[in-house]
Amino acid sequence: MSSIAELTERVREFARERDWEQFHTPKNLAMALAGEVGELLAELQWLTPEESAAVMADPELGPRVRAEIGDVAIYLARLADVLGIDLVRAALDKLDDSARRYTVEAARGSASKIGGGHPPGA
Amino acid sequence: MSSIAELTERVREFARERDWEQFHTPKNLAMALAGEVGELLAELQWLTPEESAAVMADPELGPRVRAEIGDVAIYLARLADVLGIDLVRAALDKLDDSARRYTVEAARGSASKIGGGHPPGA
Amino acid sequence: MSSIAELTERVREFARERDWEQFHTPKNLAMALAGEVGELLAELQWLTPEESAAVMADPELGPRVRAEIGDVAIYLARLADVLGIDLVRAALDKLDDSARRYTVEAARGSASKIGGGHPPGA
Amino acid sequence: MSSIAELTERVREFARERDWEQFHTPKNLAMALAGEVGELLAELQWLTPEESAAVMADPELGPRVRAEIGDVAIYLARLADVLGIDLVRAALDKLDDSARRYTVEAARGSASKIGGGHPPGA
Repeated sequence: MSSIAELTERVREFARERDWEQFHTPKNLAMALAGEVGELLAELQWLTPEESAAVMADPELGPRVRAEIGDVAIYLARLADVLGIDLVRAALDKLDDSARRYTVEAARGSASKIGGGHPPGA
Repeated sequence: MSSIAELTERVREFARERDWEQFHTPKNLAMALAGEVGELLAELQWLTPEESAAVMADPELGPRVRAEIGDVAIYLARLADVLGIDLVRAALDKLDDSARRYTVEAARGSASKIGGGHPPGA
Repeated sequence: MSSIAELTERVREFARERDWEQFHTPKNLAMALAGEVGELLAELQWLTPEESAAVMADPELGPRVRAEIGDVAIYLARLADVLGIDLVRAALDKLDDSARRYTVEAARGSASKIGGGHPPGA
Repeated sequence: MSSIAELTERVREFARERDWEQFHTPKNLAMALAGEVGELLAELQWLTPEESAAVMADPELGPRVRAEIGDVAIYLARLADVLGIDLVRAALDKLDDSARRYTVEAARGSASKIGGGHPPGA
């Protein structure tokens, strides 16, 4: 698995070479990130959850989903970079918070019904 | 900088312990990712681009932005994991594509006016 | 059914009274719109499509979904207003475009398989 | 100004003719709505707030922004319709709620600094 540090450096260089740093404010990059997530949603929106689980085996949709995931990662890495945030460290810290708020005991099955309270995510 | 592989493994374990794997289809995780990006946008929406560039120095907003960035990274890593995608590899491949489509020569200044064509991103 | 013109006027007044017009640029309002859509997604993200179809019958989730839909409509009406766009007219025009691009004959069943091409939306 | 009731009826007919009702669950439509909002953000993401305020005067960008706004309205009207929600009524109710939470007195200038508390929206 390649490193997020390498990606961050590559995206930074990509922006610098093209003189695009002037556009890369956190506000603009957050919008770009949301735009790419929107494209990702568009690939999955009409699929059933089961179909979405098999999407990478589809010769047409699979590569498109992979490319959208790549775009999202690019903008997220860039946004973290301009904010001076260690992306993985921020995620691990948040996961520690979530582990305290959603203990294993309380969380099991907590989303098994509609309106069942907290989302089953980190 | 911590590794994305470590984050991926930690999130996987987090979901398994809570019996939440059943909810983590690509479709659902893409929605959760979009929801977290929405929370990130909400933190930045009323700031000027200049204010957004200084947001991490704000004692109240800075930690909130960092936490939202963390949440986005968590769901993105989880989504890539359930899809069997190497997140950083997908991003680097996409960056190579973008480098071919937006050459340094053509790209310089391309977004300097409204409607100036392709977005100055990867 | 109440009118969009009434809503538009009410939101305009709401912003004016609070001296918030200065923040309501199209860029900021588009971010706010996306933030509210993110909250809507968060309410539906762990539901199956079938559960989502029954969501309004849930005494806890139903009112929350209705409130999020309301928030989205507020920002969309406000955004159209500051842009000088007749919201419903823009939608009807787009629907006419879509009717030409996706004829009834070609469209029937077009989304019945993964990767089946154009999304079954307007 | 055209009516939201007319739009709702037109979109309903559009979906029925194409046999797309099967795909129009609230979950799927919320994703489609978010996808269209993502396209709208993409049109505005590199503009300054001031440029965004002038976007409709741009002969290239203006029509694109109008079309995206139309797409967002289409999916929002459709989503409200399948949920059985009166869209404008839900928005007006939410605005009443917001008026109670953010009184005119307290709200004036509340977003005038970074981290200045509640967002200056409805």
